[in-house]
Amino acid sequence: MLQYTTKGEGDIINISTDVQDAIKESGLQEGFVHLFVTHSTAALTTIEFEDGVLLDLKRALSTIAPDSIQYAHDRAWGDGNGRSHVKAAIVGPSLTLPVVSGELRVGTWQQVVLLELDIASGRRRTIVCTVSG
Amino acid sequence: MLQYTTKGEGDIINISTDVQDAIKESGLQEGFVHLFVTHSTAALTTIEFEDGVLLDLKRALSTIAPDSIQYAHDRAWGDGNGRSHVKAAIVGPSLTLPVVSGELRVGTWQQVVLLELDIASGRRRTIVCTVSG
Amino acid sequence: MLQYTTKGEGDIINISTDVQDAIKESGLQEGFVHLFVTHSTAALTTIEFEDGVLLDLKRALSTIAPDSIQYAHDRAWGDGNGRSHVKAAIVGPSLTLPVVSGELRVGTWQQVVLLELDIASGRRRTIVCTVSG
Repeated sequence: MLQYTTKGEGDIINISTDVQDAIKESGLQEGFVHLFVTHSTAALTTIEFEDGVLLDLKRALSTIAPDSIQYAHDRAWGDGNGRSHVKAAIVGPSLTLPVVSGELRVGTWQQVVLLELDIASGRRRTIVCTVSG
Repeated sequence: MLQYTTKGEGDIINISTDVQDAIKESGLQEGFVHLFVTHSTAALTTIEFEDGVLLDLKRALSTIAPDSIQYAHDRAWGDGNGRSHVKAAIVGPSLTLPVVSGELRVGTWQQVVLLELDIASGRRRTIVCTVSG
Repeated sequence: MLQYTTKGEGDIINISTDVQDAIKESGLQEGFVHLFVTHSTAALTTIEFEDGVLLDLKRALSTIAPDSIQYAHDRAWGDGNGRSHVKAAIVGPSLTLPVVSGELRVGTWQQVVLLELDIASGRRRTIVCTVSG
């Protein structure tokens, strides 16, 4: 299990090293590691961890679920995070990554990231991490 | 294997209880369950199962693949479901979920859902369900 | 491991037969196969492999990350592939597929595809393929 405290909407955390550490700890040599973020306003994916690209990704997600429109969820609950739920459902909570020779086998520029999509800051986020092979 | 008859475009079915039942039946205590919907106009994800958010998600998917534009698929085949294929390919057919102490380990407000994206009603949808650990 | 040389942005390769061959070679009867593309400007999904739908998908991805706008990544690095990174992060690099009776269990019209999203042609793309069950 991996845990992070996030800084609010748009925070993107590079979790690659922590995933690699979990693989080492497990002793797994060949197989895969499954990650799942147990929240409906956060998501997992891979990306080059470069400031420009991260901004570009956030802008694209705002094209799908803009800040400026009204959400039925917000009207019903007053949460203000309707857009967060929508982005999270489209990107998805689940990511499976290969393990080869005891190492996380991703591309050179490909990092594993947690996307905080909720508007509140200081949320504690849990990622369940399961190795198998 | 889970099966559902759907009500047509925009139908979203909460399958969490059925997935939990499949886990119980398998006896699996620790590991994960893999779900795969074997259709090119349906998808799987997680979301808070609240009417407002479900509407918001459908509107966002219509931003990506609007009802009002022409689709090359529809011109070629006259199916009228070009947008359904596009949405399904972006959200994706596959979802892997963790199992901890014999229970589906998702967030409190995070439900597992089948998205019916096709325009026809009464379709029979199959989800292949594989437990492993 | 599967490898492909791609023709540049918008190339979509049907890899279903190769995945099926990998399953046969492994001898796996029941379980799943995990695919992961080890690049930050390519992605994996399923779709009906029909020219019209493939065009429709590419147009939809251009709605999320248009050709015509400026990307922070491109300003920083001059790569010109900011949109490629964004599309890849949203569709995702990972796909898990069920195996039943030694066969890839997807829908009749559902093909497994590699999406080349980068602007350069002639790139060599690697997909790590892990069978388990």
